[in-house]
Amino acid sequence: MDSHTQIPTLDDIRNAAARIAPLAHVTPVLRSRSLDALAGCRLHFKCENLQRVGAFKFRGACNAVFSLDAAVAARGVVTQSSGNHGAAIALACRLRAITAHIVVPEDAPQAKVDAMRLHGAHLHRCAPGMAARNALSARVLAEMGGTLIHPFNDARVIAGQGTATLEFLAQAPALEVLIAPVSGGGLLSGTAIAGQSLAPGIEIVGAEPEGAADAHDSLRAGERISGRRANTVCDGLRAELGPLTFAILRERVSAILLASDAEALAAMRLIFARLKLVVEPSAALALAVVLRHKARFAGREVGIILSGGNLDLDKLGMA
Amino acid sequence: MDSHTQIPTLDDIRNAAARIAPLAHVTPVLRSRSLDALAGCRLHFKCENLQRVGAFKFRGACNAVFSLDAAVAARGVVTQSSGNHGAAIALACRLRAITAHIVVPEDAPQAKVDAMRLHGAHLHRCAPGMAARNALSARVLAEMGGTLIHPFNDARVIAGQGTATLEFLAQAPALEVLIAPVSGGGLLSGTAIAGQSLAPGIEIVGAEPEGAADAHDSLRAGERISGRRANTVCDGLRAELGPLTFAILRERVSAILLASDAEALAAMRLIFARLKLVVEPSAALALAVVLRHKARFAGREVGIILSGGNLDLDKLGMA
Repeated sequence: MDSHTQIPTLDDIRNAAARIAPLAHVTPVLRSRSLDALAGCRLHFKCENLQRVGAFKFRGACNAVFSLDAAVAARGVVTQSSGNHGAAIALACRLRAITAHIVVPEDAPQAKVDAMRLHGAHLHRCAPGMAARNALSARVLAEMGGTLIHPFNDARVIAGQGTATLEFLAQAPALEVLIAPVSGGGLLSGTAIAGQSLAPGIEIVGAEPEGAADAHDSLRAGERISGRRANTVCDGLRAELGPLTFAILRERVSAILLASDAEALAAMRLIFARLKLVVEPSAALALAVVLRHKARFAGREVGIILSGGNLDLDKLGMA
Repeated sequence: MDSHTQIPTLDDIRNAAARIAPLAHVTPVLRSRSLDALAGCRLHFKCENLQRVGAFKFRGACNAVFSLDAAVAARGVVTQSSGNHGAAIALACRLRAITAHIVVPEDAPQAKVDAMRLHGAHLHRCAPGMAARNALSARVLAEMGGTLIHPFNDARVIAGQGTATLEFLAQAPALEVLIAPVSGGGLLSGTAIAGQSLAPGIEIVGAEPEGAADAHDSLRAGERISGRRANTVCDGLRAELGPLTFAILRERVSAILLASDAEALAAMRLIFARLKLVVEPSAALALAVVLRHKARFAGREVGIILSGGNLDLDKLGMA
């Protein structure tokens, strides 16, 4: 696995883009005059909720699965995920006709678990929290064999996530800031590498829930903090940075900004009402951060990556 | 008003497209493999829920308002609407800096009424039903002066609605069928004229709720049926054909297909879950019709116009 813990380059991201092009969607960028007025800046929304499996995660999973040698791929893939990465690995493995084993915490949203099953993955349930996830992943890997594709601490995955920003900057070349939610840091790492390589002066900002602020605290402390228990409705943002993503983000991110769960849910409602897009709370958090820190973004061209749209609709009264 | 009751041509639609281009969005077309599998055909969704004011109605309203001579425009505009057309006229009038008077039935959804107010229109509330709407419209027109822009029985409005299909066929040239919801028939008329002019063999299908099946029954009877009371959750589909739209549709539409309210709501949920789009029940009805009449569409390239995305979010538990 050592070769996948090197920091990926712009070339790696370009190679990933070519690899996934036949399989992934080029997602649209939407704008809203009323949200611009509310935020006091010019917002550009990269709609990764419209990506396959409803999340950017398909980019990284697809790049990782399709970069395996045939003989290695034939032994299958093991990963751990609370949702979108698992669904993405499940679909990528189905497209490559290989087996996927996914370690899933018990508190994963039903819609995401259903998506993994839909694509034929083998699920292994564990208790919430990184320790239980890591332990069961190691056991499944030992028993099943195959290749571990970590959800974020993996250069192939990070390169895949960076392809969203290649597209985004082609679609909205004037962007001055890129904001993505941060959990394990794979999306934000790929965003930072692609963004700063193509637009050297661009600012990279992470959005993190108050109840899972490990990346914020880690960058501030200058060392990676782990082992906390996350407490947030943003179910896609409960993981902690890995060594690789910490190393990338500490060099490239100007700030991790926080917002509360209530702010994330209010932003989700705004996105439903104004953009007519279904997004999950984790995706809405980036807009919540802009609205909470308006002065910082005033008058600027701000790119937000709407990371995903998978949520349990019965919680909206739509069962 | 006589000059606006002639059947518009492809040239009128092209002129409308040029007129509204600086103001309206080119909306994306989305696809979903899982919905294709469910429907047994290849579905292409034209996302007019992502149009300004959240509905295709902005196209027709914008074309009509901006085609007025300056002196005429200065006297303002009067219209009647249960929602999206009113919001569209309100925005178009604001953009042209003229006054909008809108007759609105008491049962119009709150989100749509709010949108009209947001854009500064003067609202005049009336009882539900076409008779009350028409009576109050005539009174407001007499008192206020200005130009009446009927929501659908108007060539400028129909030409504007047809611009969605100009875009759609450029984005998805292989389409064999176009399906749009039918209420007063403006969208379906514009869709039919644009579609059959550019793709002569294309089939034009209307989608109508069982509880407001006047277009279905009118085309079957060969004469325009009116004066019924609509009973459907599809709040955008409660109007009845006008003389102009009836004349267009009887020549051009191969079928008006019906679906129930329950089918419309199930289709709305599917669109939320699979396309990650917020649509209103009226927009989801076109998918409901495809799912109810699968054999008719099996294996074909089917274009669905998702007409709008304005619904009261508090009814989804998102207040």
